[in-house]
Amino acid sequence: MPWTRRHLLTLEELSLHEIDQIHATAAAFKKILGRSVKKVPALRGKTIVNLFLEPSTRTRMAFDMAAKRLSADVISLDGSSSSTTKGETLRDTAQNIEALQADMIVIRHSAAGSPLYLSKILGIPVINAGDGSHEHPTQGLLDTFTMREHLGSLKGRKVVILGDILFSRVARSNIHALTKFGANVTIVGPSTLVPRTFEALGVTVSHDLKSALSDADVVMLLRIQHERQTAGMFPSLGEYTGLFGLNKTRASWLNPKAIIMHPGPINRGVEIDSELADGNNSVILEQVTNGIAVRMAVLYLCSGGQPESVVSA
Amino acid sequence: MPWTRRHLLTLEELSLHEIDQIHATAAAFKKILGRSVKKVPALRGKTIVNLFLEPSTRTRMAFDMAAKRLSADVISLDGSSSSTTKGETLRDTAQNIEALQADMIVIRHSAAGSPLYLSKILGIPVINAGDGSHEHPTQGLLDTFTMREHLGSLKGRKVVILGDILFSRVARSNIHALTKFGANVTIVGPSTLVPRTFEALGVTVSHDLKSALSDADVVMLLRIQHERQTAGMFPSLGEYTGLFGLNKTRASWLNPKAIIMHPGPINRGVEIDSELADGNNSVILEQVTNGIAVRMAVLYLCSGGQPESVVSA
Amino acid sequence: MPWTRRHLLTLEELSLHEIDQIHATAAAFKKILGRSVKKVPALRGKTIVNLFLEPSTRTRMAFDMAAKRLSADVISLDGSSSSTTKGETLRDTAQNIEALQADMIVIRHSAAGSPLYLSKILGIPVINAGDGSHEHPTQGLLDTFTMREHLGSLKGRKVVILGDILFSRVARSNIHALTKFGANVTIVGPSTLVPRTFEALGVTVSHDLKSALSDADVVMLLRIQHERQTAGMFPSLGEYTGLFGLNKTRASWLNPKAIIMHPGPINRGVEIDSELADGNNSVILEQVTNGIAVRMAVLYLCSGGQPESVVSA
Repeated sequence: MPWTRRHLLTLEELSLHEIDQIHATAAAFKKILGRSVKKVPALRGKTIVNLFLEPSTRTRMAFDMAAKRLSADVISLDGSSSSTTKGETLRDTAQNIEALQADMIVIRHSAAGSPLYLSKILGIPVINAGDGSHEHPTQGLLDTFTMREHLGSLKGRKVVILGDILFSRVARSNIHALTKFGANVTIVGPSTLVPRTFEALGVTVSHDLKSALSDADVVMLLRIQHERQTAGMFPSLGEYTGLFGLNKTRASWLNPKAIIMHPGPINRGVEIDSELADGNNSVILEQVTNGIAVRMAVLYLCSGGQPESVVSA
Repeated sequence: MPWTRRHLLTLEELSLHEIDQIHATAAAFKKILGRSVKKVPALRGKTIVNLFLEPSTRTRMAFDMAAKRLSADVISLDGSSSSTTKGETLRDTAQNIEALQADMIVIRHSAAGSPLYLSKILGIPVINAGDGSHEHPTQGLLDTFTMREHLGSLKGRKVVILGDILFSRVARSNIHALTKFGANVTIVGPSTLVPRTFEALGVTVSHDLKSALSDADVVMLLRIQHERQTAGMFPSLGEYTGLFGLNKTRASWLNPKAIIMHPGPINRGVEIDSELADGNNSVILEQVTNGIAVRMAVLYLCSGGQPESVVSA
Repeated sequence: MPWTRRHLLTLEELSLHEIDQIHATAAAFKKILGRSVKKVPALRGKTIVNLFLEPSTRTRMAFDMAAKRLSADVISLDGSSSSTTKGETLRDTAQNIEALQADMIVIRHSAAGSPLYLSKILGIPVINAGDGSHEHPTQGLLDTFTMREHLGSLKGRKVVILGDILFSRVARSNIHALTKFGANVTIVGPSTLVPRTFEALGVTVSHDLKSALSDADVVMLLRIQHERQTAGMFPSLGEYTGLFGLNKTRASWLNPKAIIMHPGPINRGVEIDSELADGNNSVILEQVTNGIAVRMAVLYLCSGGQPESVVSA
C-alpha cells in the first residue's frame, strides 16, 4: 500500500504497516546519508515552519536538521516572538503561516489536540512535535526505531517505561506504537504518577520496581518534572530517586543485554545514575541521532514522497 | 523611467509611477512563482539582515520568505539578543551590520525616522519595515496591490479606514498611496483616535460610521491596541466594539462587493466579528500572501533590479 | 608544516606559525570574496551549531556570516531557548548537539575552560567564541590581522591596551598573540582593573596614561563594563572617563599614524570620544569586517582545510 497520510498527528491512529513504512524510509535515509552525502534534494524549494509554542532544544533542532538534509528552508517561530503574545488565536497564527505559503507546519503546543485542530483548517501538512500531555509521535517513532535496531522484532519483548507516566506524551506515543508491534509493555513508578487507568491501553501497571525490571529487554526512563513537586504529586526528588531512580543494583535485574533509553534532557542522579546513562547499555545518544532520519522520513512522506522512492530522492 | 531608488523609506515620497513599478514587479513575481518554481536566483549570495527592534511575526516572516524566494541568505537580529541591550547606539549597531558585509538591512524600530537616518549613514539599501507611528510602506504597498487585484483602478473608489488611526503607521502609508491613486479615502472612528488634522493629508474625517461605510468599496480595519486603554484614550474595548466594531448589520451598509481588509493580528469580536473576518468579502489572508510578492519586488528593485527584467531574474 | 589542529581553544597554545597560517588563510579568503564571488563551496553540506550561552550580536553574526560564505548550514542555540534552562548539564547539551550530527560547534560560555572541556569529550571540532574572562581567540586573531594590515610586521611595535584588563578575555587573547609576534605590549588603566600580575605574561603594566600612550603604534580600547561599578571596583563612569577616557588631547600623545581599535560595543563618551571613534585613525569597523575572513579561516582549517588550498576552496 502506498503512503497516503498528509499529517502526522498521533501514533494511536497509525496502522502497524504505516509505522513500518516510516521506519523503512528512515532506515533508507540513514543508509544514504553519512560519509560523503550530506543532503538529498527531496524538498528543495519547500519551506517548513517550526511553530514551537513551548520550549524545546533537541526536538526543534532535530526537525531543523532533518529539514535541511532534505534541502528544505526552515523558518522558526517561537512563543516569545510570535503574535500569540498579542492575543492572536492559534487558528489565525496558523492560517497566516499558510497564507505566507509555508509548505508544511511543525507544531509544539501545550494544548492536547491542537495539531489535529490545525489539520482540519489548513490545506498544508501538519506534524505534531508534542501536544500537551497527549502525544509526541516522532519521539515514539524514533524510540521504537532504535529498539528495532537493537532487538530486531519487538514481538513478545518486555519493555518497561519508568517514571512520570501520567502526563507524559512520550509514554503515550510509545505505548501506542509498542502495543501495535506486540511488545509487552510495563509502566512502573509511584502510584500518583502511574495510574491503573493506563491498563485500558493494553499495558501492565506496576508499582514494584524489581518485578517490573526483571528480565526486561528495554527500560525507558522519563524525565522527572520538577514542577510536579510543587503540585504536591510527589514528595521530593530525593525520595523519588531513593525508590525509583535507576542505579547499578537495579539495572542488574534487567536482561543483561537490555538497552537503557531516555528522551532527554536527563536529570543525572535523579532518574538515572551517570554511570548507567553513559554506560554500554545506554542508547540515549543513538536515540538523538535516529531522530534525524525518522523526522526526515516523516517530512518526506507527508510531503507526498513514497517509501520506495527514497533512493532517488 | 528605470527604477533608481536604493531605499524604501516611505510611501509619501514615492511617485505614482514608482508605486506602479513595484506593483508590476510584484505581479510578475506572483505569476512566476507557484506550482513548480519556488525560487528565483536574483539575490543569490546576498545577505539581508532583518533588524527587528520591535516584536513582529508576520512582517518578519514575510520578509524572510521573500528573501529566501530570491535565494538570498537572511540573518535575523531582534531586540532581546542584540547589543542595543548593552546600550549600543542604533548607529553603531547598523554600521556594524554594514561592516559585517550585509548587502541590505530591513529595519523595524519604535522611533519614527530611524530608517531615514540609517539611509543617510549607511552605504547599503535600507528598507523600512515599520517606524513608530510614522510609516509601514510595504504594508501600504501590499494593501493597495490587493485592492487593485479586486477593483482594478482605484480612481474614484471609496476606501474607508476604520479604527485607531492616530498612531497607525499602516493608515498613514495607505493614505499616501491611496490618494496618489485618486481614491476617495475616509477615515472613521472615535474622535480621540481619528483627529481632524488628518484632513491635511487629503482624506475625509468622519465620526459617523453609517455615512462613512455607505457605498464603500473597501473597508480596512485597524487593530485596536489594548495599550491605548490604560492611556485613557478610549474608555473600553467593549465600548469601542459597541460603537465601531464591524458586524453584519454595519457591513450591510457597504457596497455589496466591497472587500474587507485587516493588517493583522486580528482581535476577533473587538474590531470585527468572526463571521465577517472569515466571510466571502474578507481578503485578509490574500493580503498576507501578497505581502511576499510585494516584498520580493521591493528587495529586488532596491538591490538594483529593474521591473522589466523579472522574467529573467 | 600543514595545519593539524581540530579545535581553536586559546591563542596561548598556538605557535607563531599557526597564527600566521590562520592570517594567511584569512587574507586569501578576503581577496577571493568581494565584487562578484560571495561564497565558496568549502563547507557545503556541513552544519555548524552556534551555542551562545552568553548574549552576543557581532560575534554570533560574524560566525554566522563566515559559515554562510563557506556554504555551511548554521543552527543557532541561545541560552534562553535551550535545555540548559531545564537544568541539563553543558556536557549533555553538547553531546546531544554532536548526536544530532552537527559537524562543528562554536561556543560562547561564561565559564572559563568550557571549550577545552568540550574538546575532550566531543568528536567534532570546538571553536571558542569567548569563555568567561579567559580567552576570545578569534577576536585576538582579527585584531592582530588588522594591525598587520596597517603596520606590516608587529615586531618591536608599541601596542597599548587601555581599560578594564582584569576580566577581559579580549585583552588576554591579544596579549598572547602580540607577544608571540614580538610586539611591545603595555596595558594601562586604573590599578583596580590593571593588576601587576599581568607582568608574568610579558607585558608592561602602567597606570600613567601619558607615558603609556606616548609613541604608541596601536591603542586598543576595551569596553568599560557597567557591572563593575556595582561591584565597587571603580567609583564611577565619569571618573573613569576623566582619568582614562581617550579624547583628542590624549590621542595627540600617540604616534600620529597610530591606529585606534575597539572590539565593540562602544560606550561613546565613556572610554572614547565620538570624534576619535569615527576619525581617520579609527579601524574599528575594519576590525568587524576582518572578523568574517578570520572566522572563515578558522572554520575552514579546523574542518580539515589547508592554507594553500583556499584558492580552490
